[in-house]
Amino acid sequence: MLELLYPLRTYLIVSGVEHPNVMTADWVIPLSFEPKLLGVSIGQKRYTNSLIKEFGEFVVSVPTIELLKEVWIAGSLSGAREDKLSKLGLTLVRSRKVRVPSIRECQANLECRVIKEVEVGDHTFFVGEIVDVSYGDAFRGGKADLSYRFIMHASFGKNFTTNSDEIFSP
Amino acid sequence: MLELLYPLRTYLIVSGVEHPNVMTADWVIPLSFEPKLLGVSIGQKRYTNSLIKEFGEFVVSVPTIELLKEVWIAGSLSGAREDKLSKLGLTLVRSRKVRVPSIRECQANLECRVIKEVEVGDHTFFVGEIVDVSYGDAFRGGKADLSYRFIMHASFGKNFTTNSDEIFSP
Repeated sequence: MLELLYPLRTYLIVSGVEHPNVMTADWVIPLSFEPKLLGVSIGQKRYTNSLIKEFGEFVVSVPTIELLKEVWIAGSLSGAREDKLSKLGLTLVRSRKVRVPSIRECQANLECRVIKEVEVGDHTFFVGEIVDVSYGDAFRGGKADLSYRFIMHASFGKNFTTNSDEIFSP
Repeated sequence: MLELLYPLRTYLIVSGVEHPNVMTADWVIPLSFEPKLLGVSIGQKRYTNSLIKEFGEFVVSVPTIELLKEVWIAGSLSGAREDKLSKLGLTLVRSRKVRVPSIRECQANLECRVIKEVEVGDHTFFVGEIVDVSYGDAFRGGKADLSYRFIMHASFGKNFTTNSDEIFSP
């Protein structure tokens, strides 16, 4: 049933401070304009879940299609069981307001402080206030510029796609 | 800041029972596999917000690009102030398990019962359990078939796009 909402945009979630972790997440949503809130639903058994609960902060990083291999690795290995970061061609850099780092190669990094945690079935829904934003190497202006090729997960599994660059106006 | 998460998939939300309403929503997210949950964030001043609170049910309908005009009308008129349904070329049909109707022209309809309401800034986040699904006229098999051209909102405003049909495997 949930696959009927797919294809969905895919993002990277950074969590942890001394030993940060990066995971892939399709389940990310804007929530509120004022204050600026977003939400992310993370499996209760995921390492990222415990890191967000421990530090109360996370970063949503926006990858473009060039990072597909990294997105796949970040989504299929567990940072709790192995040194995932050493397998990823990603550079963690200091964030502006939160202790959790950002990713240099992404288009943008949204820095979030958790203001609510809601247990929803087998996942935890973290509500984050966006306290700052930085832009990464893939940023070249134009936030709603459809020439960006963002990553979309086709469904559960190993197939991905991207957004079109066509513009339709009703 | 929130526009950095765009482009995002666009869906239709049906609410209400005797006098149903249809609105457009980009802010929809899968939440849990077991039970099967999804969430939708609806502005507190929206008519749909009060209808979901009143009846405790809603339907997420999945439109394809052919319904772009309807999606725009559903997102820009208020069902509280005018007879929005008469301006929409959409056919409401009986749902399988919930009293809120489904939309015949969509690809699929996910029928939800609210199990949690969370106030998040200027919106309410409704957590719905998916109790049944029906398929509409636009369904032709293949849930993760990228030949579907689903609607994506380019950003806030009147520009829309769709998903690519390219398949990338990492």
